Amino acid sequence: MQQFHLNGFKVGDPFVHEAVGEPVDPEVLPEAVDVLIVGCGPAGLTLATQLAAFPEIRVRIVERKGGPLELGQADGIACRTMEMFEAFGFSERVLKEACWINETVFWEPDAADRRGIVRSGRIQDTEDGLSEFPHVVLNQARVHEFYLDAMRKSPTRLVPNYSRRLVGLEVGEGRSGAGDRDHPVKVTLERTDPEHAGETETVRARYVVGCDGAHSTVRKLLGLSMKGDSANQLWGVMDVLAVTDFPDVRMKAVIHSSGGGNLLIIPREGGYLVRLYIELGRPGERFSREDVTAGQLVEAARRILHPYTLEVKEIAWWSVYEIGQRLCDRFDDVPEEEAGERFPRVFIAGDACHTHSPKAGQVMNVSMADAFNLGWKLASVLLGRSKPELLYTYSAERRAVAQELIDFDREFARMISAPPKATGDDDEGIDPKEFQEYFVKQGRFTAGVATRYGPSLITAEPVHQDLARGFVVGTRFHSAPVIRLSDAKPVQLGHAVKADGRWRVFAFADREDPADPSSAIQRLCRFLAGSPESPVLRHTPKGADIDSVIDVRAVFQQGHRELALEKMPPFLLPRKGRYGLVDYEKMFCPDLKGGEDIFELRGIDRERGCLVVVRPDQYVAQVLPLDAHEGLAAFFARFMLG
Amino acid sequence: MQQFHLNGFKVGDPFVHEAVGEPVDPEVLPEAVDVLIVGCGPAGLTLATQLAAFPEIRVRIVERKGGPLELGQADGIACRTMEMFEAFGFSERVLKEACWINETVFWEPDAADRRGIVRSGRIQDTEDGLSEFPHVVLNQARVHEFYLDAMRKSPTRLVPNYSRRLVGLEVGEGRSGAGDRDHPVKVTLERTDPEHAGETETVRARYVVGCDGAHSTVRKLLGLSMKGDSANQLWGVMDVLAVTDFPDVRMKAVIHSSGGGNLLIIPREGGYLVRLYIELGRPGERFSREDVTAGQLVEAARRILHPYTLEVKEIAWWSVYEIGQRLCDRFDDVPEEEAGERFPRVFIAGDACHTHSPKAGQVMNVSMADAFNLGWKLASVLLGRSKPELLYTYSAERRAVAQELIDFDREFARMISAPPKATGDDDEGIDPKEFQEYFVKQGRFTAGVATRYGPSLITAEPVHQDLARGFVVGTRFHSAPVIRLSDAKPVQLGHAVKADGRWRVFAFADREDPADPSSAIQRLCRFLAGSPESPVLRHTPKGADIDSVIDVRAVFQQGHRELALEKMPPFLLPRKGRYGLVDYEKMFCPDLKGGEDIFELRGIDRERGCLVVVRPDQYVAQVLPLDAHEGLAAFFARFMLG
Ligand SMILES: Cc1cc2nc3c(=O)[nH]c(=O)nc-3n(C[C@H](O)[C@H](O)[C@H](O)COP(=O)(O)OP(=O)(O)OC[C@H]3O[C@@H](n4cnc5c(N)ncnc54)[C@H](O)[C@@H]3O)c2cc1C
Ligand SMILES: Cc1cc2nc3c(=O)[nH]c(=O)nc-3n(C[C@H](O)[C@H](O)[C@H](O)COP(=O)(O)OP(=O)(O)OC[C@H]3O[C@@H](n4cnc5c(N)ncnc54)[C@H](O)[C@@H]3O)c2cc1C
Repeated sequence: MQQFHLNGFKVGDPFVHEAVGEPVDPEVLPEAVDVLIVGCGPAGLTLATQLAAFPEIRVRIVERKGGPLELGQADGIACRTMEMFEAFGFSERVLKEACWINETVFWEPDAADRRGIVRSGRIQDTEDGLSEFPHVVLNQARVHEFYLDAMRKSPTRLVPNYSRRLVGLEVGEGRSGAGDRDHPVKVTLERTDPEHAGETETVRARYVVGCDGAHSTVRKLLGLSMKGDSANQLWGVMDVLAVTDFPDVRMKAVIHSSGGGNLLIIPREGGYLVRLYIELGRPGERFSREDVTAGQLVEAARRILHPYTLEVKEIAWWSVYEIGQRLCDRFDDVPEEEAGERFPRVFIAGDACHTHSPKAGQVMNVSMADAFNLGWKLASVLLGRSKPELLYTYSAERRAVAQELIDFDREFARMISAPPKATGDDDEGIDPKEFQEYFVKQGRFTAGVATRYGPSLITAEPVHQDLARGFVVGTRFHSAPVIRLSDAKPVQLGHAVKADGRWRVFAFADREDPADPSSAIQRLCRFLAGSPESPVLRHTPKGADIDSVIDVRAVFQQGHRELALEKMPPFLLPRKGRYGLVDYEKMFCPDLKGGEDIFELRGIDRERGCLVVVRPDQYVAQVLPLDAHEGLAAFFARFMLG
Repeated sequence: MQQFHLNGFKVGDPFVHEAVGEPVDPEVLPEAVDVLIVGCGPAGLTLATQLAAFPEIRVRIVERKGGPLELGQADGIACRTMEMFEAFGFSERVLKEACWINETVFWEPDAADRRGIVRSGRIQDTEDGLSEFPHVVLNQARVHEFYLDAMRKSPTRLVPNYSRRLVGLEVGEGRSGAGDRDHPVKVTLERTDPEHAGETETVRARYVVGCDGAHSTVRKLLGLSMKGDSANQLWGVMDVLAVTDFPDVRMKAVIHSSGGGNLLIIPREGGYLVRLYIELGRPGERFSREDVTAGQLVEAARRILHPYTLEVKEIAWWSVYEIGQRLCDRFDDVPEEEAGERFPRVFIAGDACHTHSPKAGQVMNVSMADAFNLGWKLASVLLGRSKPELLYTYSAERRAVAQELIDFDREFARMISAPPKATGDDDEGIDPKEFQEYFVKQGRFTAGVATRYGPSLITAEPVHQDLARGFVVGTRFHSAPVIRLSDAKPVQLGHAVKADGRWRVFAFADREDPADPSSAIQRLCRFLAGSPESPVLRHTPKGADIDSVIDVRAVFQQGHRELALEKMPPFLLPRKGRYGLVDYEKMFCPDLKGGEDIFELRGIDRERGCLVVVRPDQYVAQVLPLDAHEGLAAFFARFMLG
């Protein structure tokens, strides 16, 4: 599903886009930008990569450090995040390099001799069919590099401006102007490189996004604060090369020991590296953050693993991690009472607005998901495609997700930290069986696919959910295998949704022959191609490719050899680009031979078919009847201009 | 199956190997090298990439052109070639970027009106289960770039020395010395860049490989000549961006028209580009090579496609291709009568020793396969691991393959060029049905998996073939899905075979419990780990990792949850590298849940198990009983030193 050479054959790497506009100067910041991103963590880089795809938008990303991250920090990559990486075009690199988490094993004190441990359970890590991608782990620094590489290949060739610390932020006049061309946010940056020590710079921006981590300066300057438990757990984390006779060292292993504490083992990329998370109790209880040494962590791990041995040969990275579940009231600069008066100009994303324990492996994933949610919205408003009201939905949607996650995390952290029950009637401890059941139940949650956005400007009420029970409105579009009609290639339908800011409408046809001019799919296509009410015509700028704002694709019920391409609606064979070439990648059929019929898999009504509207961040916005022409138009008119 | 960080954690891209030894100077050639490769085509680059993996070997690759290929030439990549790309570490890049050939369609004159054409057939391009990879097409220049990238990331950081034309070659004294350290081949190179016009350089080499294409100077200087039909077919080829109402333009389409000639359509990467092969008859018949214009090619294609329209918007590349089936008597510098007296010092590979029509899509693939066959042999002899007799097998094995291919190609070309039969009793023409049947039958051939090397020093007589009917001795090791025991990851067993010059022994266990010390697999492991007869101990240099010359892996019949890792033979959990870390990737189980049991798929004797010995170029060298300890030792002793 990677198309190129539309506007002429180009030699070289087709995934390097043609450079457009002024090049980014890594040394000098412009006086004014459309979006200033603060912080090169996973959140900032996701946002920057998303916005770098639009040459019309002038973006800069600043980072107080002198260069990219090289080591440590988060490593868990949920299935849902892999789906997003696919949209950004580098999932295959992660799949190749990362360690796959296939099973999770549970160990508990040995009933015969509670000084030892025994394996008490073993589960498949990710439920079958949950995602087309596995759950993997990879050094956060490598994820950063994949984003930086995608940015370098983008039309804007975006690179970060390093060695800049944000120290000041003022949201000035021009606040309420929708579509105004001024730059109401004034940002002050301090140089952090010795050569420029003490120098400050001022940048004016239309929007500023604080992706500046748990100690976010942007958050503080907005006067927002984190609520919740501060630092109630101390965890030691280390990436080691070690020799052990513990047999499950290449599985994700959750180990509850009777006296020594708890340990989480995460196998890592390359087949030798292993991450150990060692529970150190409440800060100050047994350890205080400042005093913990790497040697103590190794000792603690050895105690927990007893009678298995652990010989650490190299510590690649280690840290003591003090964590609580904390959450900000809102993720933008508009207090509830001012909503309606003005639109947000400053946002915060990632650890800047919520923190969690690393246990559920969610931290980095949620931060990136925040940014993926915000990126297309900012782009859409800046490009004049959508009303600025769209920007309200970011805080509303992501705050709800963070809240859910924190509730989950608190429960999960409690379970993982609690001492294992010694006997059936020990009320204090936690029954390892109970923990394991909880773990299984929450699989969808940890895979990142449980997110469900509530009804809003861009997410409809699920009135027609019965037409496609597997595409739940508000959840991510769950991909399924299909066969492309034009060339019989087996593809994942969801991979049509790239991180390009476009909306998608998937039209699932009813049983009729789509070659029949009176069929519902033909009528839909005539409406979309010709009616003055057509949302595609209405919202696509003159001269732009017909699918550049709303990309319509069709899925038929018939096998791909039963249909004649030439009799399909011309709207599904659109002419594009400077030559008017035909795009042959709009039509799909079920993979009948492979035995995975998307109509079955996703519970689509075969009699009636349906329309599934998918947001640029891959979430299902709306399910509609196939003939709901007006309904479709009305949906887009809610937030789109033009 | 990508392992790294064994000798310590390294930041950055793990696929960039640590640089070892003197860097290659793209400007200056050394006086003496181990291997000099002539020509940066697919053959030369495959060989260079293979040899670049060994820092102990000093390799240079020269090319008369000033830089890498940018456009055109071959584009077909057979399944078998994809398997080789996997071994070189870039299959995922090709899979992502290339166009997949999923079905082939056949068109013939319309019986109702023979001025038109109708679809007469449609077949799946690649038989199910033939390979874990699809048949794809991609610009040859991109394949070159993937090799160049792999070379840049290799320990030697090999880069080509461009702008050098080989003009002289002398094979001097020192010919017969096995293991001699002199450099008997003297090569004269002429600079082709204007700045150095007229300058010549001399390089002495231990081995020279002419990968210098159909007009090979190396071949001529060796006094070898091509035999066969010279240039008996003229084909026009063009890569176009075009608009057509021909419905199968995204399929591989073979079109026989009644009057206009024949056309082959190959859809290309990116979804818009298409390659057209237009048959122009015998040279001089209707066209002569020099006079053909791009306009004539377009006109010819339009005539053949009639009544469908074809509007060419851009011609990215075009060429007229004059081709015959020609073959060299031998692929090295040792005439049959001198074999035994001396060992080869100069080789030719690829188009330098055989040419074919482009129709079967085999050309580039066979050239790369030549080089893959030769590369490890040269390395093994240069590293002192194998006897120089090994080098005789290159010409013997590859010439037989080329002969078969030429026979096939001649038949295929005849069929594709013949006018379609007008009536059932027209003896001249070819029945499109017959062509189609032939096409299906030869699917394995075109997929590149039909190659079967005959018995030789390195390929045993297939005495024990019944123990593993699906791993045919002499053919490529046909991968199958398995589950890795240590971490339950689903992997392709064949992907354990990387292009690293190592031999592999796959031990397929019998039904016994492998935890039982008296089981055949445990006995085998004790033999390999401890016996003075062990080929692993005998052929592995002191201090090297135990799997660095012969890599032994085991596949059990039990499901991965039924086996206890800690009870498996320690030989299958080898300690490696400077820290003595455990390698957990030697043991596999069938994918029982996925329903694809490798023992079933490959016809392995469940009662007896077996040993499958696999060459560094992925070919099955030998199938032996599981307890054939001496047989295994004897096999390696035939050609290995140490
Ligand atoms: C030391 C450390 C250890 C961690 N260990 C683990 C772990 O073991 N497991 C786990 O799952 N997660 C761990 N995390 C958490 C995980 O890395 C984060 O949850 C994740 O990176 C959040 O992404 P983010 O983009 O929101 O913020 P961050 O990754 O924190 O990125 C924020 C970026 O903003 C920059 N920045 C901050 N202030 C400014 C400013 N004023 N001006 C300019 N730039 C600024 C920072 O330098 C940083 O690069 C760790 C985090 C840290 C900091
Ligand atoms: C113009 C052209 C068009 C082709 N079109 C098609 C096609 O349409 N379809 C298809 O399937 N195949 C096509 N081929 C064939 C296909 O490209 C080859 O079969 C394939 O590249 C063979 O690979 P090779 O490495 O053996 O030789 P080549 O790819 O020919 O590589 C030989 C290399 O050696 C260099 N070289 C030659 N002599 C010397 C010397 N004396 N000193 C130094 N360097 C030297 C050459 O510059 C060249 O880079 C075409 C080939 C050519 C040349």
